[in-house]
Amino acid sequence: MSQRIYNFNAGPAALPLAVLEEIQQEMLDFHGSGMSVLEVSHRSKWFEDVLDDAIARVKRLLKLDDRYHVLFLQGGASMQFCMVPMNLAVEGKNLAYIDTGTWASKAIKEAQILGKDVRVVAGSQDREYTYIPEGFEVAPDAAYLHITSNNTIRGTQWAGFPEAGNVPLVSDMSSDIFSRVFNPDPFGLIYAGAQKNLGPAGVTLVIVREDMLDRVPANLPTMLKYTTYSSKKSMYNTPPCFAIYVVQLVTKWLEETVGGLDKMEAINKRKGELIYGYLDSQKFYRGTAEPGSRSLMNVTFRLPNADLEQKFIQEAGARGMGGLKGHRSVGGCRASIYNAVSLETVEALVGFMKEFVQKNG
Amino acid sequence: MSQRIYNFNAGPAALPLAVLEEIQQEMLDFHGSGMSVLEVSHRSKWFEDVLDDAIARVKRLLKLDDRYHVLFLQGGASMQFCMVPMNLAVEGKNLAYIDTGTWASKAIKEAQILGKDVRVVAGSQDREYTYIPEGFEVAPDAAYLHITSNNTIRGTQWAGFPEAGNVPLVSDMSSDIFSRVFNPDPFGLIYAGAQKNLGPAGVTLVIVREDMLDRVPANLPTMLKYTTYSSKKSMYNTPPCFAIYVVQLVTKWLEETVGGLDKMEAINKRKGELIYGYLDSQKFYRGTAEPGSRSLMNVTFRLPNADLEQKFIQEAGARGMGGLKGHRSVGGCRASIYNAVSLETVEALVGFMKEFVQKNG
Repeated sequence: MSQRIYNFNAGPAALPLAVLEEIQQEMLDFHGSGMSVLEVSHRSKWFEDVLDDAIARVKRLLKLDDRYHVLFLQGGASMQFCMVPMNLAVEGKNLAYIDTGTWASKAIKEAQILGKDVRVVAGSQDREYTYIPEGFEVAPDAAYLHITSNNTIRGTQWAGFPEAGNVPLVSDMSSDIFSRVFNPDPFGLIYAGAQKNLGPAGVTLVIVREDMLDRVPANLPTMLKYTTYSSKKSMYNTPPCFAIYVVQLVTKWLEETVGGLDKMEAINKRKGELIYGYLDSQKFYRGTAEPGSRSLMNVTFRLPNADLEQKFIQEAGARGMGGLKGHRSVGGCRASIYNAVSLETVEALVGFMKEFVQKNG
Repeated sequence: MSQRIYNFNAGPAALPLAVLEEIQQEMLDFHGSGMSVLEVSHRSKWFEDVLDDAIARVKRLLKLDDRYHVLFLQGGASMQFCMVPMNLAVEGKNLAYIDTGTWASKAIKEAQILGKDVRVVAGSQDREYTYIPEGFEVAPDAAYLHITSNNTIRGTQWAGFPEAGNVPLVSDMSSDIFSRVFNPDPFGLIYAGAQKNLGPAGVTLVIVREDMLDRVPANLPTMLKYTTYSSKKSMYNTPPCFAIYVVQLVTKWLEETVGGLDKMEAINKRKGELIYGYLDSQKFYRGTAEPGSRSLMNVTFRLPNADLEQKFIQEAGARGMGGLKGHRSVGGCRASIYNAVSLETVEALVGFMKEFVQKNG
């Protein structure tokens, strides 16, 4: 058996080793059921306990009050790009979006496909999406303001969330949920594909505030209505049980091993200081995101040329560091350093970066 | 650690033990990647090999020619209830459905929510869905004829598929796909939630014939169009990687251990003969499906009264037999004997049934 690598994948991404070991250990017999977690009924106490615990942990970690429903859907964040406007649009009101790159752009496109009155109130396309916009205005009668809290491809992240008065915020937090503490109050809805900070691909966490559910049109297909999930505790039909189980284990790890989101945020800040500190200290590597907009989850950088980038990725691979290739749409390098990527792993990367400069700089 | 039970769950359901052991063994290091299968990128060779192999095995097992696309979606069969009419309806043509119980009824309801011209051409509601209709007519200009090949709740199954001339068949095969050999030619589309005969909950197999894709409207949301999946090999966005991986292992088991669908069908027939043969030989238990319509996947039966049913389920549980309670909407008992439930397991059940009669009959 080979050793486990340093995993810098953008998603699916590294999971805590303790979580993987727990999955492995109980694969044939889940909690004394005599069945695998893959085989127990979703209507059994075994699975209901998992679901209830996952919901409770999400609520505690994010300090959500009783107005918020914690739902588990399928289809990834991409399915939310259409479900959000289908469910939360309001007759006569516009939908405000901020365009910070690929995923935000896709969310906008899906709202437009539905024929909604979409207003892109700000964007950073003018400088290749390398920054988070500031100083924009949102019309007070917008139905919601949609943002993408972290942009995996360009390596940018909202340091704080925009002020939009009474307009509820809707955020795609797929790539930075549970990475830091934030105030949920301005949010009407938060969604996150699990495969970065939450668990494996195949489940989408949706957190929706009670008042948003009043907007859901009665005539939507059943599986496309948030109320179908909120009224049946995500079990109108068979949910993606295994993926929810892994989310439960990851949230347990966050609470019991890491010690909560303030601790997780502190670790993530140290990881960011380490790698961005190094990037700022030299000229060989060049970070692509503007300093005030840098992501603590996805660190994007270039080397002097594409040949060196290829060599860097290859030699890193030989040293047991995987997933450092930038997204195919932009090239370059990217180190995704989600919650499950330890400070030690980031230290190993920075160590290798230094060595590589010495030989190739 | 407790022993593994005899698992008669209706879904999620029993998986082959060899599949679970393989998952367990490679959980921390998938094929020498140094990562778990939960952590590898969906764009990596590791996962692409899994996906390609799963597709190839599905095609071989079902003898699908090149006109058929094998897709992996999310949302369960319930999501297909709306996606089928969204994608395959044809302006000016009606949609024909046959109502054989809960799941078929739900498929009909979703087409109606979309405002389509739905014609229920046959149904078995008059005798509590205990049989499969015969002798109905389908208008030759119907866009498709939708059937549910096996009805988990009432324990009925289409022994052969209806003749509909040039009208393409669309079938929900969630609970009997891969249980027997059939001719795919009349089918325009087949869908199946994985959690009975295919793998874990969280992925839906969709098999769609090329000519059906011409019907897909251009203005549907991206994630709700079959063409999004067919043009990107189910990887427009991150697919449910782990669930697809388990499907790959189950189809490998079907090909390499069982020896193909003809062998699987022979085993399923023996299992059915054993339990239905016993039901027909005595008067204590009463099968609820009409003999010509009996399901080889879900065997539904009653005992003389509800108290005895409760006692039966409880004592069976104490003997390591789980999942024998009937669906909450109909009561009684149900033994789901999908592909992964062995002949020996069915023998054990029949043995227990005989014992129970001796003590309580």
